[in-house]
Parts: sequence; structure tokens; C-alpha cells
Amino acid sequence: MLKNYVKPKELDKETLKARIQEETDKLFSFQMKIKEERLPVMVIFEGWGSAGIGSLISSVIKGIDPRFFQVINMVKPLEDSEKRRPFIYRYFAEIPEAGKFKFFDSFWMPELCRSVLNESCSEKEYQTRINSINITERQLTDSGYLVLKFFLDISKKEQKRRLKGLLSDKNTKWRVSKADLWENRHYKECQEVYDRYLNDTNRSAAPWYIIDSSDQKSALLQVLEYLNQGIETSLKNHSLAVPIIQNIYPLESMKPLKEYPLDKEISEAEYKAEIKKLQKELHSLHYKLYRKKVPVIIAYEGWDAAGKGGNIKRIAGALDPRGYIVHPIASPEPHEKSRHYLWRFWNRLPKTGHIAIFDRTWYGRVMVERLEGFCSENEWQRAYNEINEFEKELDNWGAVIIKFWVQIDNATQLARFNERQNTPEKQWKITDEDWRNREKWDLYEEAVNEMLQKTSTNYAPWHILESVDKKYARIKALKIVINSIKEAL
Amino acid sequence: MLKNYVKPKELDKETLKARIQEETDKLFSFQMKIKEERLPVMVIFEGWGSAGIGSLISSVIKGIDPRFFQVINMVKPLEDSEKRRPFIYRYFAEIPEAGKFKFFDSFWMPELCRSVLNESCSEKEYQTRINSINITERQLTDSGYLVLKFFLDISKKEQKRRLKGLLSDKNTKWRVSKADLWENRHYKECQEVYDRYLNDTNRSAAPWYIIDSSDQKSALLQVLEYLNQGIETSLKNHSLAVPIIQNIYPLESMKPLKEYPLDKEISEAEYKAEIKKLQKELHSLHYKLYRKKVPVIIAYEGWDAAGKGGNIKRIAGALDPRGYIVHPIASPEPHEKSRHYLWRFWNRLPKTGHIAIFDRTWYGRVMVERLEGFCSENEWQRAYNEINEFEKELDNWGAVIIKFWVQIDNATQLARFNERQNTPEKQWKITDEDWRNREKWDLYEEAVNEMLQKTSTNYAPWHILESVDKKYARIKALKIVINSIKEAL
Repeated sequence: MLKNYVKPKELDKETLKARIQEETDKLFSFQMKIKEERLPVMVIFEGWGSAGIGSLISSVIKGIDPRFFQVINMVKPLEDSEKRRPFIYRYFAEIPEAGKFKFFDSFWMPELCRSVLNESCSEKEYQTRINSINITERQLTDSGYLVLKFFLDISKKEQKRRLKGLLSDKNTKWRVSKADLWENRHYKECQEVYDRYLNDTNRSAAPWYIIDSSDQKSALLQVLEYLNQGIETSLKNHSLAVPIIQNIYPLESMKPLKEYPLDKEISEAEYKAEIKKLQKELHSLHYKLYRKKVPVIIAYEGWDAAGKGGNIKRIAGALDPRGYIVHPIASPEPHEKSRHYLWRFWNRLPKTGHIAIFDRTWYGRVMVERLEGFCSENEWQRAYNEINEFEKELDNWGAVIIKFWVQIDNATQLARFNERQNTPEKQWKITDEDWRNREKWDLYEEAVNEMLQKTSTNYAPWHILESVDKKYARIKALKIVINSIKEAL
Repeated sequence: MLKNYVKPKELDKETLKARIQEETDKLFSFQMKIKEERLPVMVIFEGWGSAGIGSLISSVIKGIDPRFFQVINMVKPLEDSEKRRPFIYRYFAEIPEAGKFKFFDSFWMPELCRSVLNESCSEKEYQTRINSINITERQLTDSGYLVLKFFLDISKKEQKRRLKGLLSDKNTKWRVSKADLWENRHYKECQEVYDRYLNDTNRSAAPWYIIDSSDQKSALLQVLEYLNQGIETSLKNHSLAVPIIQNIYPLESMKPLKEYPLDKEISEAEYKAEIKKLQKELHSLHYKLYRKKVPVIIAYEGWDAAGKGGNIKRIAGALDPRGYIVHPIASPEPHEKSRHYLWRFWNRLPKTGHIAIFDRTWYGRVMVERLEGFCSENEWQRAYNEINEFEKELDNWGAVIIKFWVQIDNATQLARFNERQNTPEKQWKITDEDWRNREKWDLYEEAVNEMLQKTSTNYAPWHILESVDKKYARIKALKIVINSIKEAL
């Protein structure tokens, strides 16, 4: 792409100025529409050192209201907490809210290209990351994000000229980094790596625009044009349905819920002996995990009153409290709702060596959000694949992923609801909503069965915990957690 | 404190066990009350290496529901982003929401004591930090937080015995750090530093409990007892009014708003020449700030339609977009509202070398929240001092703090409202709420005058921007920003 892109016609000074003004006015008028239509906009700038990203962003935003955009500088070393999370993590954390503009001074390109250039990244790792990037960008654009990507191009000679200029003035000297000088000396090598990256991530929903940046004004006009064009298209297509992608991940076959016999039980004596032994084992495994820096994610879903809370308590009770966290997941807050639905889960990932237990999860998308109409049909249908992709990212990162469905039958739920209703200390546990949800049992069962079938991958399988006898379910959960961790160590 | 605290009576094994069970049951039953009453609880554990913080926390939480508490491990090196923020920042970020329990495996004590022990902290710095800690803890308890602090004490001999035990087993050896061994060798020196710290931060609202931890069970019982006692008291006193503290900061005298003549103006020609010159100057100062790592905070308040937006735009337009951020402040979101009202501002502080511009600020507490009854009278009355304290923290950190009140008269506001109402492209800027607020002009003016008088300190003074002529106000703002930064460099 870097060698063959078509450079724009040269305009005379007057025309150029007039065109820039025209496009700036257009962008200004789009700003309110973006807010009204709640369009989230990501504008990503990459480019050669000294290609002028900073001053270009300055010029672009000069015409718009500073309260509705933000400039995020991602050119900074990874923090320790970021190093202990998946590659995508620190970038996903920065995606804008609906109705907001975010300009990024570089995004995931330099981290990857640098690791190729200094040979700390194998070909296989490179492919995995490219795949992660493409998947994530597609997830964003599918869910209505406008993602625009610009690469500011200058020639080796022009770069050298600019670096020299900066170095010759004591006020600007400090702005030239060693990396800039290295890049100029290895211009051709870098160009190849960049070019490959640009090709590998050039997708129709989030295409690259290579901008000839030898002339600042002309670069500005091009950026403004593409920006306005992108916004215009996006405003038209906003909330259109997008294709449902076919599953490509290895699925394990799952029986429908009805076929799991619920008569499994365990005696009090056996329970007491077993649980003590298992908790002790898990406790010592936790230290091993910690030392080997393996992250663990345990996801709980299940019927109301199935015994999720007590089950989680038995797992948590075995762990060092400094090395795990329980995330109770309620309905999303406004700042969460106005971003991609996986955002709040990305932000709750454990560090390597830590355990995160989710009491309800991202599967809300294909259960409650589906059934209550909190998202469109196209959205929840798409979610199965998006979730498999999300969990694949966690798997690539090295996480142990354990998913539990805590299962009871309809009659057991009724009995437990009634007991809660009639026991003063337990009344807080039962709400009108629980009774309302109960009326939709059959619809939920259908949704759960579809979920189990479509998201039980071999890297993140579902486990059914038969929980009419809660003690049985707790022992089973502990055993599964122990075995899954052992396999990973 | 460490030498003279009274150790509890020894209990026989049976009684001890029964008492622990009693207190655990009590804690369990308190848990729901804490949730109902929306009490935020911080339980801070400090202590000698190997005193058993981890296992003690484990034992305490065994009896309670893992969905309503969190354990936060603060024993970790500061991240780069934390090093570039005030001392209090990383800790304040972790304060719990209303109705939630947070257990802290250490808090701000080790960071400070370590810097005393390795002599990287002068006596004056120590005093400043002690003061910051006491102020922040008081702000939290004043606003209804329960803050309980435990120090787990063991003797030099006992510590040595435990460290030896850990070192002798290859599975636990890694848990002994160099710092632990150093601490044991310098036990007496450490004891003095710790003791001083405990005395210096032992305040009635957030007192220290020294726990003799030579016996784990007995330590557990003591912690449970203090915990339950603290919760019980707190539930009784919840939302009580607290004393209003008298101002101790150097105030600058401020005239009432009415006395500022609003006839100031500037010609179009003069404006154009001036603004270009000033923006250029600010632009180059921004680089200097960046290199000297000076943080800048610019706070905007003012009447609706006074011209805040346009004013901010002229400041922002002069800056490198990678080095500043504009924070538009709307009413708080649920997760913000359920914490101390300054929390969302602590979280929005710039890094050193960066500029944060706040479009409306923490002063909402003494304006809109006061007038609309979103907080109690006791709360907003207290806020003047809390805000002066907050800004003093920023000043201690080295920040330049600039506060603008954008001033117009009642008639000008009416004219601008009408113009907005009658111009289609401007209608989005005017809402029913604006008209409603306008009716309360006199009440607002009274509140603003009180605010200006009580919070214009010499380290964070208010500046009035006469903005009937918006151009005049912009030039004045630029000059003030430039001068304030120059003074700091």
C-alpha cells in the first residue's frame, strides 16, 4: 500500500485554503449529529516519526468543540498492569462512548510492528495478533463504531530533513527520540514491516487511508475529506443489521438441559470430608498459579435460586483473598451501556496469576438482553460468535476459562422461591423481577440451550452443575476447577 | 502505641471457638444491613511481614457473602501513571461504593514508612504526607465512610521464627521477600518509624487497633469484635451531621459579583492581533511544562450562556492535543454518585506535564447540589473546606491551579437565551432546565458569592472573566493562564 497509493492532485494555495475551510465547516456541523445519533467515532493516526501527527490532529480539531472529543496518546510504554493483561486490553479500555469522538495518536500498530522489527515476535505470534486486531476492529464496526485509520507517509529523505531540523534547535531537540533516528536509518526495513501490517489490517469496514504528508495543508485536506466521508456514510448506515458470521471454532456437543438427570446427590458426611480435601487442594494450586502467572476466569450462569452464591462461596473460600476477585454483574451502568457490551468485561479481566469469578457474565447478551429486548435480534445473534472470539482472546493469552451453568428444575425453583418468600431473613433475596422471570422459564430454557450449543468451545467449555442437591453441585464445581487448573499447569 | 497496647485476656480453646462463631454470625447479619443502609466500609490491614494479614483476611471473609466485598492488594510497586499523580491518588481511586465492603491488604502506610526508612523523604515531606492522610481519612469518615485500621503486631523473635519456617520449605520459600528479612534485621528501627506513624494517624474517627498476632485465632476474634463494634456504631450514626471545620488556608478577598463592571471590551482588530500572539506564547509554554513535568488544572464555572465553551476552545486551540484533555462535567453517574463526591475529580487529574481543563467542576457541590437539594446543608457547608483541602493537595503536588468564573449580567443572559431559542442551529444549546435555573438567578448569585469568598486561596485563586464581550474574556483568560504558568516555571 505504501508504495502504490495514489497521491492527490496538487491544488493552488487559494483553492486548498477554501477547500479546508469547507470541510472544516462540514465537520463542525457533523459534530452535533454525531452526538444526537450517538455515533461512537475512533480516528486512529499512525505514521512515520516526524510525519506530523501532532500538528495534524491540532489542525483537525481546531474547528470543533473540545467538549465532545478527546485526544488519546497511546505512544507510551506499557504499564505493569497492562503487561499482565491480553494484548487487546489496554486498547479496548479506551474505546469511546456513544456520541463521542476519540482521536488516537497511534494505536496497536506500533506495539506489534516494533516487536516484529526487534524480532521478539514469531511469525505465528504475528499472525495471532493480526487476527486479534482484525476481529476486534470488526466487532467494533459491527456494533456501530466508526473506525477510521490514517497512516501519515513521508519519504526517507523528507524524514531525515525534518529530524535534522528538529535536532538543530535546542528547543525542539528533545522531541527526537532514538527510535526516530533508528527508523530513519532502517527506513526500508521498517517500510516493509509497516506495509505488511497495513495490508494485513486493511478491511472494508475499517480501511486504511495512506496520506502523503510531505505537505501539511494538503495532508489536512485529505484527512478532513475522508473523515467527513466516513461520518456521512456511518450516519446513514447507523444501526443497520450486519451479517451473522458462521462459527469457525471447535465446538463441543452439548445436550439440551432437559436431558441432564437432576437426582444426583451426596451425603452430608461425604460432603464434609470431600469439601475439606478439595478446598485444601485448590488452595495450594492457587499459589502455583500465582507463581506461574496463569490467569483464571470462572463464569457462573444459572437459574435464579439455583445456588450460584453458595457455590461461588465454596470456591472463593479456598482461595487467598489477595489473589482473586468476585465480580457481581448487574445491569450495565450508563457509561458501560454506551460502549460495546464486552467493554465492561474486558475491564474486569484478572491479572496473570489471579482469578476472577463472574457472578453472571457476558452471556447476559444472549439471555436477558435477548429476551427482554434490550438489544436487537441481529445483535444477540451476532453475539455467539463475538463471545467465542472474546474467549479465544483469553485462551490465546493463556487463561484457564471455566463456565458453569447451575441447573435446577422448575419445581425446585418454585419451592426455593416460596421458602425465601416465607423466611424473613431470606426475603431480600427474592424480588418481583424473579417471579416475572420465572414466568418466562420456557423461553429462557430455549435461549440457554442455544447458548450452550453455540458457545461450548473446546478452549472454553460449559459445565452443567446439577444443583437440586446444592452440596453435590459444590463438590462438582470444585473438582472441575481443580482439574482445569491442573491441566493448565 | 506498639509498646503499650493492652493485649486481650487469653481464652481457653473452647470459649475462643464459640466467640469467633458468635462474632462471625454477627458480621454475617450486618452484611445485609450495610447493603441496605448503603454504608461504605474500608477495612485496612497493616502489619509486620509474616504477621499473617492474608490468612486473617481469609478467616474474616469466610463467613460472609463474596459478592458484597472485595479484597484489594495494595502491596505492589507504583505504576508509572501513579508516580505522575499526587500521593493520595492511587489510594483514593480504590475507595468503595456505598453499601460495599473493601478489605485492604495495606494502604498508604508502607509507601510512607518505607520512604522514611530509606531516607528518601525529608521531615517536612513526612509531615505533609501525614497531614494529607489525616485530611483524606477525615473527609471520608465525615461523608459517612466507616474506616477501620488494624496493625498486626508480632515480636522480633516471632517474626524470625515464621520467616525461618517459610524459608525451610521449598513451597513457601518464595513468599519471603528481601524486604521481610531486612525488616527483621532492623526490627527496632522499623518499630520506631511504625509507631510514630500509628500515633500520627490515630484519630478518633479512624482509630488504629493494634492486634497481638502471635496467636492467629485470638487475633481473628479481636478483629471481628472491633469490626462488628465499628459497624454497629456506624450504622447508628450514619448520615449524622458532622462539625464544620473553620478555614485555615490563606484566603484572598473577593468582591461580590455585582461589583465587577461588565463594560469591558476589546476591538475586533486588537482581538485578532492579541489572540494570535498569546496562543503562540501558550503553545511554546505547553512544551516547557511538558518537559518540566508541571501539571496544570484549569477550572471553568460560570453562568449559562456566559461563553465558557468558546473560552475553553481558545485555550485548547493553543495546546498540543496530546498534552491536554477537556473534561465536560455533567451530573454524576451512579457509580460516581455512590462514592465521595470528589472521587470523580481525583480520577480525572492530569499526569505531570499535562493540562486538564474542567468544564464545570467540583464546585457543583456548593452551587447546583446546594440549590437543588442534592446534598444536605451540612454536606455543602462542609464542602468549602474540603475543596480547599483538595486543592491544597494539588498545590503540594506542584500543580498550577487556575479557576475561572465567567461572568455576565442577567439581561445579557436573557438576550443570549432568546437568540439561541430563535436560531435553529443553536437550539440544541438551550434547554428547559436552563430557563428553570435562570429563575433562581438571585439564589445562585448568593451561592457563587459565598463560594468565591470561601475558596479563593492564594494557591488556587478565582479569576473573574467579564464576558459580556466574549472576546475580552478570552484574551483575559489566555493572559491569566500564561502568567500563572510562567510563575510556576
